[in-house]
Amino acid sequence: MLNLLDPSILSIIQARPANCHKGNFGRVCCIGGNIHYGGAIIMTTQACIHAGAGLTTVITDHINRTAILSRIPEAMIIDWKNLIEVEKRCLEADVIIIGPGLDTDPHARTILESVISNQTEKQWLVIDGSALTILSEIQLRFNYPHQIVLTPHQMEWQRLSQILIEEQMPAKNLFVQQQLQTFVVLKSHQTEIYLPNGEIYQNPLGNPGMAIGGTGDTLAGIIGAFIAQFADKTQAILAAVYLHSLIADQIAKEQYVVLPTQLIQQIPYWMKQFSIKNTKK
Amino acid sequence: MLNLLDPSILSIIQARPANCHKGNFGRVCCIGGNIHYGGAIIMTTQACIHAGAGLTTVITDHINRTAILSRIPEAMIIDWKNLIEVEKRCLEADVIIIGPGLDTDPHARTILESVISNQTEKQWLVIDGSALTILSEIQLRFNYPHQIVLTPHQMEWQRLSQILIEEQMPAKNLFVQQQLQTFVVLKSHQTEIYLPNGEIYQNPLGNPGMAIGGTGDTLAGIIGAFIAQFADKTQAILAAVYLHSLIADQIAKEQYVVLPTQLIQQIPYWMKQFSIKNTKK
Amino acid sequence: MLNLLDPSILSIIQARPANCHKGNFGRVCCIGGNIHYGGAIIMTTQACIHAGAGLTTVITDHINRTAILSRIPEAMIIDWKNLIEVEKRCLEADVIIIGPGLDTDPHARTILESVISNQTEKQWLVIDGSALTILSEIQLRFNYPHQIVLTPHQMEWQRLSQILIEEQMPAKNLFVQQQLQTFVVLKSHQTEIYLPNGEIYQNPLGNPGMAIGGTGDTLAGIIGAFIAQFADKTQAILAAVYLHSLIADQIAKEQYVVLPTQLIQQIPYWMKQFSIKNTKK
Amino acid sequence: MLNLLDPSILSIIQARPANCHKGNFGRVCCIGGNIHYGGAIIMTTQACIHAGAGLTTVITDHINRTAILSRIPEAMIIDWKNLIEVEKRCLEADVIIIGPGLDTDPHARTILESVISNQTEKQWLVIDGSALTILSEIQLRFNYPHQIVLTPHQMEWQRLSQILIEEQMPAKNLFVQQQLQTFVVLKSHQTEIYLPNGEIYQNPLGNPGMAIGGTGDTLAGIIGAFIAQFADKTQAILAAVYLHSLIADQIAKEQYVVLPTQLIQQIPYWMKQFSIKNTKK
Repeated sequence: MLNLLDPSILSIIQARPANCHKGNFGRVCCIGGNIHYGGAIIMTTQACIHAGAGLTTVITDHINRTAILSRIPEAMIIDWKNLIEVEKRCLEADVIIIGPGLDTDPHARTILESVISNQTEKQWLVIDGSALTILSEIQLRFNYPHQIVLTPHQMEWQRLSQILIEEQMPAKNLFVQQQLQTFVVLKSHQTEIYLPNGEIYQNPLGNPGMAIGGTGDTLAGIIGAFIAQFADKTQAILAAVYLHSLIADQIAKEQYVVLPTQLIQQIPYWMKQFSIKNTKK
Repeated sequence: MLNLLDPSILSIIQARPANCHKGNFGRVCCIGGNIHYGGAIIMTTQACIHAGAGLTTVITDHINRTAILSRIPEAMIIDWKNLIEVEKRCLEADVIIIGPGLDTDPHARTILESVISNQTEKQWLVIDGSALTILSEIQLRFNYPHQIVLTPHQMEWQRLSQILIEEQMPAKNLFVQQQLQTFVVLKSHQTEIYLPNGEIYQNPLGNPGMAIGGTGDTLAGIIGAFIAQFADKTQAILAAVYLHSLIADQIAKEQYVVLPTQLIQQIPYWMKQFSIKNTKK
Repeated sequence: MLNLLDPSILSIIQARPANCHKGNFGRVCCIGGNIHYGGAIIMTTQACIHAGAGLTTVITDHINRTAILSRIPEAMIIDWKNLIEVEKRCLEADVIIIGPGLDTDPHARTILESVISNQTEKQWLVIDGSALTILSEIQLRFNYPHQIVLTPHQMEWQRLSQILIEEQMPAKNLFVQQQLQTFVVLKSHQTEIYLPNGEIYQNPLGNPGMAIGGTGDTLAGIIGAFIAQFADKTQAILAAVYLHSLIADQIAKEQYVVLPTQLIQQIPYWMKQFSIKNTKK
Repeated sequence: MLNLLDPSILSIIQARPANCHKGNFGRVCCIGGNIHYGGAIIMTTQACIHAGAGLTTVITDHINRTAILSRIPEAMIIDWKNLIEVEKRCLEADVIIIGPGLDTDPHARTILESVISNQTEKQWLVIDGSALTILSEIQLRFNYPHQIVLTPHQMEWQRLSQILIEEQMPAKNLFVQQQLQTFVVLKSHQTEIYLPNGEIYQNPLGNPGMAIGGTGDTLAGIIGAFIAQFADKTQAILAAVYLHSLIADQIAKEQYVVLPTQLIQQIPYWMKQFSIKNTKK
């Protein structure tokens, strides 16, 4: 019942066509980062840019503005208090990643509700972190659940699914996920991915050096970037999960902890390695 | 009709004379970076400094000040609200790069108009990004069009020239450019450079990893620095375009996306390589 | 009487279990960094994260917020003026490191008193820098002195113990430390560690390139991270002191001064080296 | 008459004694960095720390605070508007470097006058950049001119000495310098150092890649750090000038421009190389 991911999933990473421009690789909005958790959205955004999204905008508490620019001049920045601008940017986005460091206060809820209720038929959502906590507390109808990826860790999935961590077995998880009809990336030391069509994939990679704050934020950014630039969205999601752990495993050969900011730096190198391999085939 | 650029254009990069000081390599002002697009002017400025400009000043929304200093202590910074200081600095500048992240609001227009109308006979302008959008909306007379470089991508050129992207053929482009009498660097996957004397050059280098926000901002910085330090301005512009893609192609051998901030780091190394090669001849 | 530390102390650094998450490696709060000494708490926090703490929160003057995020997106940040939030976070912490750049003003005293008086029976405190100066001026009762590590340099120990630097001999130091009943890491060019059970260890490593501001702040971060993730707390403290100097000695082979920020970067690499060695045994 | 510097001047860089602490390598205050030129004092400070000063404090416009911390957590920071604190810190300093990015407004003058008039008999001053411009406009009496290093470039020396650049010959320069009785480091493509005893040294190293804003700020930081930690102050000054160019020449083998921030990174490595060489002798 559980399909094991293997390197063949990375065949999606192909040489890009010669005649292209940044618009071809998607517009992504990353929403999150409040006064306490600004670093989360920084890591998501940087991962998204390094993983090849064409144009990436951060929508965040403006208190995070200078730190973001200091680290990632490639990103554009919108103050999340400016709801008119937020809505405008989200409307143009091919992918919206929402949740890292978002927290659960009323303003966060307002933005999340707006993003979910305004989802267009061409738009994908990646819902992570505190946005999942909000989701577990309120009743929200998804416009296009087949274009939504939820990325809970086990505690967030417990809140969302009402399944206790120790009882989170594939059959039970699938039952709840099938009601949601979204993709679910259930993060643990052996991450499982539940697809809308009922298939389940398991990621055999990963290592305990990844047990540090920021690892999940980074994954959300890669998933968003892959959906933005690759045509087969299911494969994009699975490849993002697999590549994230594959890079972490490479780093863990030399490092006791896998710092998310270090993992991010390596994304373009490993994507290139696999695009070369895939092009040769 | 289209001259293909080749490595010989880089012969302009020579060993510098022993007896020189920073004043010999030009004063450059980089103008841009509003509240949403601060990163653009950061990349332009950093590229300009790495490409060898002697003294580089950023004129920007002061909200970008700390991020700029964090990344580039070599830069001086002027608040663009301080119009007296802005005008004073621009007067002293050998080259002004205006546009990256400038946006199109009234204040941006005021600065652009001031820069264009105050262009001195010894001064070069590089006009990029949103400054080109403004140009396409208002009627501005250039004092010294032969000392102006416009660097539109295809959509900006459509706005400026009224030629639809799919109809942007050399003959048509040349017709409009000859009316403008400026240099035009028309950025695409095969960038073309139109000279005031009617010659057209095409850049055979470049790769799809460059399709990411910030690539154009970086090019503007290199063009500005090259004009500031090299005597033959036409060759300086052509060499800047060529080197920018040459470095990107080197990076793309190992990286799936060519991050502008990574490209910038490599400029001094590649300039050195060519100066050694050129000095041996 | 003095036990000399040797590499065997690093046997505590083992391969982590496969099935784990960030909660397994501890929640650490780093408290310090006022308007003059923000860098101190930055170095402590970064060292703590690089040394493997699972979840690290900085509690600091909010003026340091952007610099922290620019350097360490992995960290969470709490404004130390927000005493309700401070108390809440401290309550959840497995380890609290307090002192680097804290200074000695009334607000600093308030926080230190709160941390000490609220120490829970499962919680460890690492008290460093200006917090030690405060301690030498006021009378504070420790709830769990066996779970407290004081990390004075010689002048701070003089203030705290009333023993003049030139008279700081093991017997005298031990006498005072035994009254305190805490761990004491007495930093000098040959750091000594006094245990609650009366044992004394000496660190034979270290070099004069470490004589630079920030070296001590870095050590405090490593001690905190090691206590947070390793079961044997005494060995964790000793190993932290030893590893800190061991890395510094490696760097000093190539660098005249051992910059703390450079030392920090190397921690994950050296932890990995020893975990590999220890796992082979 | 002109003594040519050679590598023997670097014999001052010796292995440090084992038993030492950060106080042994000096307390340095770096004063400068206004709203336009914050980067200058950042480079001075970072150079000072990398060159081995024990404890380094920046005294600057507080607007530069976050950028400094983001780049150099090893530095302590004082707001230069806080004149009481400024005076207190300066009193404790072994070396004060004043001028990089200081500008010439009334507040800058107030601080410069305070620093010069409060110079203690154990204290050294390095006066650079805009502080030299101020000096050329006002009449200031030096308490201990033999403990003052002026570091003008040719234009600053013209303002200060009234000798036109094209007439700045050793005999003329010496005449003015002997009236001042300070050290003068006259920066050009062949920097000359004038000593209070009338000796003149010339630096044969250096390259045109150093012709970029920030090179002089970096030199000031190295001079300050060397005076702070080495006993023979004359040799310290000469060695700082020589090492600065030596490192730049190494970088210039691979880089067309020598970015000051890149030069700074290399200081600890090259100091180590020479300390090893000198210890073997």
